[in-house]
Amino acid sequence: MINYDTFLSTTGRQLHESAIRKMGTLGVRIPGLVSFAAGFPDPVTFPWDDLREISSELLDGRDGTVLQYGATRGYAPLLESIVEVMAKRNVRTTPEELIITTGSQQGLDLVGRVLLDPGDVVLVELPTYTGAISAFTNVQAHLVGVAQDADGIDLDDLDRVCQRERTAGRRVKLLYLVPNFQNPTGSLLSLAKRLQLIEWAERRNVLIVEDDPYGVLYFDDVATEAETRPLKADDAGGRVVYLSTFSKTLAPGYRMAWVTAPAPLTARFELAKQSMDLSSGIFDQRVVHQALRRGVLERIAPRLRELYRSKRDVMETALRGELGSVLTWPDPKGGFFLWAELPSGLDGDALLARAIEERVIFVAGSAFYVDGTGQRRIRLSFSHPSPERLQEGVRRLAAALKPALTPSR
Amino acid sequence: MINYDTFLSTTGRQLHESAIRKMGTLGVRIPGLVSFAAGFPDPVTFPWDDLREISSELLDGRDGTVLQYGATRGYAPLLESIVEVMAKRNVRTTPEELIITTGSQQGLDLVGRVLLDPGDVVLVELPTYTGAISAFTNVQAHLVGVAQDADGIDLDDLDRVCQRERTAGRRVKLLYLVPNFQNPTGSLLSLAKRLQLIEWAERRNVLIVEDDPYGVLYFDDVATEAETRPLKADDAGGRVVYLSTFSKTLAPGYRMAWVTAPAPLTARFELAKQSMDLSSGIFDQRVVHQALRRGVLERIAPRLRELYRSKRDVMETALRGELGSVLTWPDPKGGFFLWAELPSGLDGDALLARAIEERVIFVAGSAFYVDGTGQRRIRLSFSHPSPERLQEGVRRLAAALKPALTPSR
Repeated sequence: MINYDTFLSTTGRQLHESAIRKMGTLGVRIPGLVSFAAGFPDPVTFPWDDLREISSELLDGRDGTVLQYGATRGYAPLLESIVEVMAKRNVRTTPEELIITTGSQQGLDLVGRVLLDPGDVVLVELPTYTGAISAFTNVQAHLVGVAQDADGIDLDDLDRVCQRERTAGRRVKLLYLVPNFQNPTGSLLSLAKRLQLIEWAERRNVLIVEDDPYGVLYFDDVATEAETRPLKADDAGGRVVYLSTFSKTLAPGYRMAWVTAPAPLTARFELAKQSMDLSSGIFDQRVVHQALRRGVLERIAPRLRELYRSKRDVMETALRGELGSVLTWPDPKGGFFLWAELPSGLDGDALLARAIEERVIFVAGSAFYVDGTGQRRIRLSFSHPSPERLQEGVRRLAAALKPALTPSR
Repeated sequence: MINYDTFLSTTGRQLHESAIRKMGTLGVRIPGLVSFAAGFPDPVTFPWDDLREISSELLDGRDGTVLQYGATRGYAPLLESIVEVMAKRNVRTTPEELIITTGSQQGLDLVGRVLLDPGDVVLVELPTYTGAISAFTNVQAHLVGVAQDADGIDLDDLDRVCQRERTAGRRVKLLYLVPNFQNPTGSLLSLAKRLQLIEWAERRNVLIVEDDPYGVLYFDDVATEAETRPLKADDAGGRVVYLSTFSKTLAPGYRMAWVTAPAPLTARFELAKQSMDLSSGIFDQRVVHQALRRGVLERIAPRLRELYRSKRDVMETALRGELGSVLTWPDPKGGFFLWAELPSGLDGDALLARAIEERVIFVAGSAFYVDGTGQRRIRLSFSHPSPERLQEGVRRLAAALKPALTPSR
């Protein structure tokens, strides 16, 4: 038998496993499991009728390019449509600054490969999105955490950490952020801090990677559209690489996302993508383009906000009822996640083992921290289960927590 | 203005541009251009009616998973269908040895990232597929060419080159091959050599990457199905990483391909793919799965072989008529390409410049050689243009060649 390890590259040996993906495989195996783990949208929100109609029209055989190879940069009319999407987010951009990616995960991978050498420092929030941790770790970058307040990243700590790393002789190239309804905390970066961050990036010669999958999904009892204004909207100096996606709004199955970045960087991303997958799905691009052109996304967006807000309410009400004296959490202002803190002495990973026995799963907080902390946190996603299943899942979570709360243990 | 170059990684600075993709952008700009450049399938072969029917059924809204996130490894029933596809190619495999990729290009990228460190040697044929050159070059591997005969790679040269590189202190990890209707030469590796290669790989402790997009497209006047037997079919020792795709048979727009490799390697590919794009298109996987289940691919395969064989005939007849005394080429035994040799003193890149003026393009041979040679070769793809356009393109090619053939020049 061959020892395949001897054939692996440094990357191949050190690959970072996604805690969220690992949870996903559990879901398949345990019947009746309630999953608060993955950030799956609710399929009732997918515009099935529109997509069926669009697909039938595209597949009438009159236009062979619908299923042909296509440009690496993306389908040109889709790029034009995304220029309009960005304009609604107050960002002026052009097709020269855009590239379609196979999910935002590929955008993160492109950033990693084109910008990061082994040992380069990426500053990230504590906690931060696991998919970014994986992408940047897999190019052997060094991820360094920065503290967060209720209104987002702590700017004093950011500058302190940046300067400390530079004094230690390391190259600090990027700051990675999820400003809108952060994954995992659900928090919203204040507008004041957004402007300060751009100024800081100029001063310290750092690029900002702004990951914005959830901006459209603000909950209008606690947040406004104006508060989701991208950093990219005020990026006069060309410091921001902005990522967004149709996975949380239209449907994740199409794997349609995009990057808006200064043209010289986008050109590099395009070259890198040529050797990564030639292009993202052509049919998928055509479907999304038609959905945008026909106003599908604009039509369903208010319903999405309403639905996820109501699901947040169901989860919060259930948690207050079952575990109000045990768990604490900041109010999610949008997006898919509730970020809960366990009582002192409890550990998210240990709780997960018991929760699986009760047939409910979540993501243990440690997966989101690059500094080895986060043991007392858990991420609960309320986006996918039905209201009844949300309530049932919280009951199971309470059952899993109870033994640990008994003083004798 | 920021100098973005200072932010690029080593990879980002050295990205390899695809000569074929570059040609693709030309096609958009020149009206009436005949392209012999890209290996595009003919869209008349796409099974439009089946795909429209399948899509409508999948999008009836009854199964939310059709547009949801999915497993990184791939849609489980599709993996099972591919086990059957492989069985028909005489390869016994299991889902543990399979992974769905976003085009075969992603399979090549996975091989590069998981197996190759900077400086590692990949042995490739002279000439070889440009997509492999890009993927392996972009992980800073060192590509070393091996001579080819009419029936495929020269085994003596292969062993000589391998030992030479090892003596020079370099790690030779992989041999990359396109055994069936090679891109760009259209040649077929003999069955005897296939078995010898597996024995050689065992003896020299090398892995073989077998890229097989065209095996199904043999031309039955000059080749048989038996002659396309994959190396993987006789890979008792677990030396072969086999790549194939639905891009040349069903449609490239779905970006659906797969890798079959020893389970320990496939597990590493899966981890790497998690941080690359989470998964390939879910809807696309469902469509391809249904097409396989309904026997669409089996039904259309004979028609594909017939069509491309007839297009080869049209191109060869036109070339003999217009340029029979000027160009020489080995008879393509399958696939999409004719590999022509120019008269002594002519150069493919220089000819391309004149050809563009005549509104016909091809890929200059130098793009396929890792040793800087190939100036007298050109790759002519006959798969996409209609018979009339094939003839018109050859006329234009002859017009582009004429000035160079005039003795006074």
